Amino acid sequence: MSLRSEERRADIVRAALEVIAERGYRGATLGAVAQRVGLTQQGLLHYYPTKEALLIAVLAERDQWDAVPARVWRLDLLRSLVEYNAMRPGIVQTFSALLGESVTEGHPARAYFTERYASVRPSMAAVLRAEYGDRLPSGLTPEQAAPLLVAVMDGLQYQWLLDPDAVDMAAAFGNFLRLLEGPSAQG
Amino acid sequence: MSLRSEERRADIVRAALEVIAERGYRGATLGAVAQRVGLTQQGLLHYYPTKEALLIAVLAERDQWDAVPARVWRLDLLRSLVEYNAMRPGIVQTFSALLGESVTEGHPARAYFTERYASVRPSMAAVLRAEYGDRLPSGLTPEQAAPLLVAVMDGLQYQWLLDPDAVDMAAAFGNFLRLLEGPSAQG
Repeated sequence: MSLRSEERRADIVRAALEVIAERGYRGATLGAVAQRVGLTQQGLLHYYPTKEALLIAVLAERDQWDAVPARVWRLDLLRSLVEYNAMRPGIVQTFSALLGESVTEGHPARAYFTERYASVRPSMAAVLRAEYGDRLPSGLTPEQAAPLLVAVMDGLQYQWLLDPDAVDMAAAFGNFLRLLEGPSAQG
Repeated sequence: MSLRSEERRADIVRAALEVIAERGYRGATLGAVAQRVGLTQQGLLHYYPTKEALLIAVLAERDQWDAVPARVWRLDLLRSLVEYNAMRPGIVQTFSALLGESVTEGHPARAYFTERYASVRPSMAAVLRAEYGDRLPSGLTPEQAAPLLVAVMDGLQYQWLLDPDAVDMAAAFGNFLRLLEGPSAQG
């Protein structure tokens, strides 16, 4: 891919992120993104042939921006990430909607999410090990707790997106961290 | 609605559940369901005007079948429910895909899921209170732990659907129950 082409793709992904933030998942049509970046829809299709392909590129780009070097990650940074996510419902909605679709047969986002979880679970296990060593207070290993940590983050996003007044996502995630901490964290 | 019409709707929902179990979310087209129940697609549309409307009816019917009287619910029954779900990927996939879509603007399943969570969270809080009283070993209240319990069940379903070999959903949920139990459950 030429440098020019790479730049154009980066422009498109940035424009898509803006449109998602403003109009949400459904409003982020290829037409709206093309207009934002000054391309015809046909021109946009040259770079991203489907809406799914574009949204996967947006999520992968977010993963890059959110990435923290492994040695720096700490559990309390995860809480900050959840608080930050609560301020950007558009991208969280895009992630959650695409994750939902990805579990259906032959969906183009399936590989992205499968690989993402295959890499996120060990990353989270490493964070938990740095915090607790080989056993959490509950007796679980970091490898046992990691899928639960990821599941709670994803699951809370759905409850929060559906009913933001009923679910305080950051507070709920903080409660999960207390659960990991165990009784010693009381008082 | 006439009795005849109600029976026909029940037949359609049952047929849809069968088609989902055999062919998954994408394979469960209105045409396939109509054929199974011996209706034209036009005839089916009279009862369920969209695929989403039919799938919501299927999920609501599952809620009825899965319902356990409040006084009978126990945490270990939840583990059995997760084990049971691991044997019916079609309906779990349908739930997860539709939950994903429901967070997008104006989706027809949004009200179903919002109301479902508004009722499931207090139900789960009641189960936790029956088990632990007003405080869990971690110090959380049942009302604080309930959204986490629901989030873990939903979130694990995505990880499991994407990669069933990597994630043992029932074992992972069992680990979450150990987490609720706290250190006293060790050994």
